[in-house]
Amino acid sequence: MKDKLLFTPGPLTTSASVKAAMLRDLGSRDFEFIAAVREIRGKLLELGGVAGRGYEAILMQGSGTFAIESVIGSTIAASGKLLVAANGAYGKRIAQIAAVLKIDHAIVSGPENRPLDPGAIARAIRHDPAITSVAVVHCETSTGIFNPIGEIGAVVDGSGRSYVVDAMSSFGAVPLNIDECKIDYLVSSANKCIEGVPGFAFVIARRAALLATEGCARSLSLDLLAQWRGLESNGQFRFTPPTHAILAFRQALAELEEEGGIAARTARYQANYQTLVAGMRAMGFEEYLAPELQGWIITSFRYPGDPKFDFAKLYGFLNERGYAIYPGIVSEAQCFRIGSIGRIFPDSVRELLAAIGEAMAAMGIALPMARG
Amino acid sequence: MKDKLLFTPGPLTTSASVKAAMLRDLGSRDFEFIAAVREIRGKLLELGGVAGRGYEAILMQGSGTFAIESVIGSTIAASGKLLVAANGAYGKRIAQIAAVLKIDHAIVSGPENRPLDPGAIARAIRHDPAITSVAVVHCETSTGIFNPIGEIGAVVDGSGRSYVVDAMSSFGAVPLNIDECKIDYLVSSANKCIEGVPGFAFVIARRAALLATEGCARSLSLDLLAQWRGLESNGQFRFTPPTHAILAFRQALAELEEEGGIAARTARYQANYQTLVAGMRAMGFEEYLAPELQGWIITSFRYPGDPKFDFAKLYGFLNERGYAIYPGIVSEAQCFRIGSIGRIFPDSVRELLAAIGEAMAAMGIALPMARG
Repeated sequence: MKDKLLFTPGPLTTSASVKAAMLRDLGSRDFEFIAAVREIRGKLLELGGVAGRGYEAILMQGSGTFAIESVIGSTIAASGKLLVAANGAYGKRIAQIAAVLKIDHAIVSGPENRPLDPGAIARAIRHDPAITSVAVVHCETSTGIFNPIGEIGAVVDGSGRSYVVDAMSSFGAVPLNIDECKIDYLVSSANKCIEGVPGFAFVIARRAALLATEGCARSLSLDLLAQWRGLESNGQFRFTPPTHAILAFRQALAELEEEGGIAARTARYQANYQTLVAGMRAMGFEEYLAPELQGWIITSFRYPGDPKFDFAKLYGFLNERGYAIYPGIVSEAQCFRIGSIGRIFPDSVRELLAAIGEAMAAMGIALPMARG
Repeated sequence: MKDKLLFTPGPLTTSASVKAAMLRDLGSRDFEFIAAVREIRGKLLELGGVAGRGYEAILMQGSGTFAIESVIGSTIAASGKLLVAANGAYGKRIAQIAAVLKIDHAIVSGPENRPLDPGAIARAIRHDPAITSVAVVHCETSTGIFNPIGEIGAVVDGSGRSYVVDAMSSFGAVPLNIDECKIDYLVSSANKCIEGVPGFAFVIARRAALLATEGCARSLSLDLLAQWRGLESNGQFRFTPPTHAILAFRQALAELEEEGGIAARTARYQANYQTLVAGMRAMGFEEYLAPELQGWIITSFRYPGDPKFDFAKLYGFLNERGYAIYPGIVSEAQCFRIGSIGRIFPDSVRELLAAIGEAMAAMGIALPMARG
């Protein structure tokens, strides 16, 4: 049986060899397993451009949200305050974490179709001296927009606050230097652009910032500093690690290198994205975002105006033919999403486009549609 | 390459077919994946003897400790108080979770070589009306002792408190009816006696108790009630699930059924345990616990008195020959641990015993050792 190709924000399609790396049972204290964890931590620092530059990579069990909560809950003191700049669902989720953890916080909301404004963040910080941390999402997976994390980093750095970047769906697929962007905590997940399987996420933390968070943790499981200390002291996780997912990730990192590193992966995903958008436009679909704001990770398309369009039918039709796309999550427009990431190639995208064309015909919608 | 056999508390050795179930990429909203989650949740209730009896099975990303923290952090109100009865490291960990979460708590400590005393728990509850929840570990994985969760359940039930049982290393390997033991929240993990791979844990919760916990959650990621509502509303996890580990677990549940269910698995683990203990005793090793208290999950053996004994050498010798055992964690005695669970059989145990004999000879220790 052939599995569906996943044009989603993740879990993604992975290579057969990444999955085959899971055909082993390693003990969590096994020398080879500990060496795998060490190797992964080192390579993550290299991918972030911060090997030997005062950063630490920390793996955390659970989904990406668990690792975000680990950073928010472990690095802000009881007297601290978080500023979240949000232009989509994933930014709002960070604020929701702060609310549940009863961490004082403020939100700078921006429109979903515009990048976050570093000036607005600068003003918010200036007007509120209580703020101690600032958090933003790099690629807002709700729309696919790229936020200017370097410019925001310059603003935050100048203000003396700590800087948290949710790079869940971008890390590994966008050239990035964590130090130059002045990031204190970058968070991403195993099952995104490194093309591993889900089961854990990771944080790349500035060591000096991390060491200053003693006593801040609001959770035992999600205690970031304790997790780092565990990994440093004996190379082990404090609590049972997802050993198979970690072996898959080690293989995924090797395959990223073989492909040519982040530059090559960026180029492949950009080619996927360009193939997708050209094909969708040719059928008359419109993107939610202006093209110059759109990243190459995931794209939100507006529902066509034709009343015969039915997203559930499109989704089901594609599913039957072996393609998974994703519902929308933009609040102000009816959209669906198609991802460009994972072990997919421009040819896979062309197959998907052909199937979308057939689905539209099956709904009785003539192509190309007139653009609104 | 053949992996080591794991005689540990987990991750454990799993079958080739359980691992092969991970050779697929399913989307987290895929119909088949949602059906797998539904099937797993139903089968967990059956295994706990509570299908159709007012209980719910909730899967939670992360290790078993994450799920324990999810229960402790999500089911005790701000004004609540937890009583932890502890006779080992894993009981103490529950108290540590309460401490980090700033939940008022008290501890009834029992000696590590004695089962928890239901009478002591009854007295503690009677003397402290502030207590709202009681938590105990079923099989204390530090020693392997079985605690009398049924008797304790009768005590707790009579007092109107809620009752949390950490059945991490026992669920699936000990006949158990959750309802008859008056358990409100039972916690176990995918990579224990069901013989899945690590990546998530699960909670079997009394629905009425769970529904009364609205507003108690101290975490977004580990919010038990919200996780259940997510699974109920659309069959999905709220945040990215470990899809591969879940497919492995579905397969592991099928293989548990094929083996003959919990009764057959209990019998195999008991045979492993009996083979182990007979062989170790024949060499002159002594168990930490009195035999009548010792469960068949994991056994703590005392370091022999011979000064030539070196646990690191034993561990390394066995490792090189393909067997992983586990260090001890008993506070009052020098011990090491050998597990009887996972995809291992009495023949595997006999191989291990032969290798232990060779290791002792290599250390220059004549067998059988004189027993202390």
